[in-house]
Amino acid sequence: MHDPFSAVRRYDPRAGTLSGAVPAERRLRELAGVFADDKAFAAACAAGNPLVYTVASAEPADGAGDLHYGIGTLYPGRVGAEFFQTKGHLHAMRDAAETYIGLRGKGLMLLEDERTGACTAQPLEANGIVYVPGFVAHRTVNTGNEPLVYLGVYPARAGHDYGTIAEKNFKQVVVERNGRVEVLARADVLASLR
Amino acid sequence: MHDPFSAVRRYDPRAGTLSGAVPAERRLRELAGVFADDKAFAAACAAGNPLVYTVASAEPADGAGDLHYGIGTLYPGRVGAEFFQTKGHLHAMRDAAETYIGLRGKGLMLLEDERTGACTAQPLEANGIVYVPGFVAHRTVNTGNEPLVYLGVYPARAGHDYGTIAEKNFKQVVVERNGRVEVLARADVLASLR
Repeated sequence: MHDPFSAVRRYDPRAGTLSGAVPAERRLRELAGVFADDKAFAAACAAGNPLVYTVASAEPADGAGDLHYGIGTLYPGRVGAEFFQTKGHLHAMRDAAETYIGLRGKGLMLLEDERTGACTAQPLEANGIVYVPGFVAHRTVNTGNEPLVYLGVYPARAGHDYGTIAEKNFKQVVVERNGRVEVLARADVLASLR
Repeated sequence: MHDPFSAVRRYDPRAGTLSGAVPAERRLRELAGVFADDKAFAAACAAGNPLVYTVASAEPADGAGDLHYGIGTLYPGRVGAEFFQTKGHLHAMRDAAETYIGLRGKGLMLLEDERTGACTAQPLEANGIVYVPGFVAHRTVNTGNEPLVYLGVYPARAGHDYGTIAEKNFKQVVVERNGRVEVLARADVLASLR
């Protein structure tokens, strides 16, 4: 007999794992074009290929009212002055939102509205919830010293569009400067590197 | 200028609170018809009107791809042999699912498919995730000694239908018997009470 119910999952807010899900791994050399500082990126890749983040997802069903979810673990680290960050994405179904639930660590969610160009950086950290509206590109940045772990819940039909970000990137860059976390305009960072 | 972004929220997995949200309170006397044992319910109501659960919700936006979410806190307690439980609901938009993320405590989620009558009880507890598919009535039960705290994320358009449950109730009843948690058929429990 067909069981209409999905298996219960276990998540580990420290390790950033999800039972029954094989995590996708993103290592540094896969993140070409993400960081503003090309020279620092090349140097970091020459020195090694560290794990930057993992995402483990569950896709219980695919109907119009269904939801998918995943747990992300973004490791602490830097490329030059820039903190480790995810590629970032828009949803293929542009109006699909995503609710991010912070479980561990300290970071920022970069948000950029594709329609207006409006952008902001919101804290994403343990015990915080960031709501990503539709049409808003989003990228997480780990500004702390331990893994940043979070759950993301989104409509099953959302899909992922990485290509738009790969082409346009984000306007904001998050760096460490004099021991402080600063959110800078990419254009300014690029100019300073020239 | 219109800010397209929502405020970041803070949630407390111990206290079951959500910043910027006033919790709705459900006290025992509001739960008439929920428990199988009418006499035990009347006696418990005569003795007091304890807080059974609270729900604090966030509704950042209402579009087709948007999400709402809430934090539920179900206190430990019993009415006769039956554990404290929520009213339970279906979604008004029947195909809307809900993802429940357990934060604290130990309990069960009663699930009942409105289309087939299939039912089950899944563990809902700290570090567990229960997926409630569309068309499935769901009710949480606290089988432990501390508050059961969980987040629920659902499509903004889901809506809540409490009336169907108020009329039909759930087929399963969760009781403590000889120090053990048992999931029984309501029909059998009602027969034994006669």
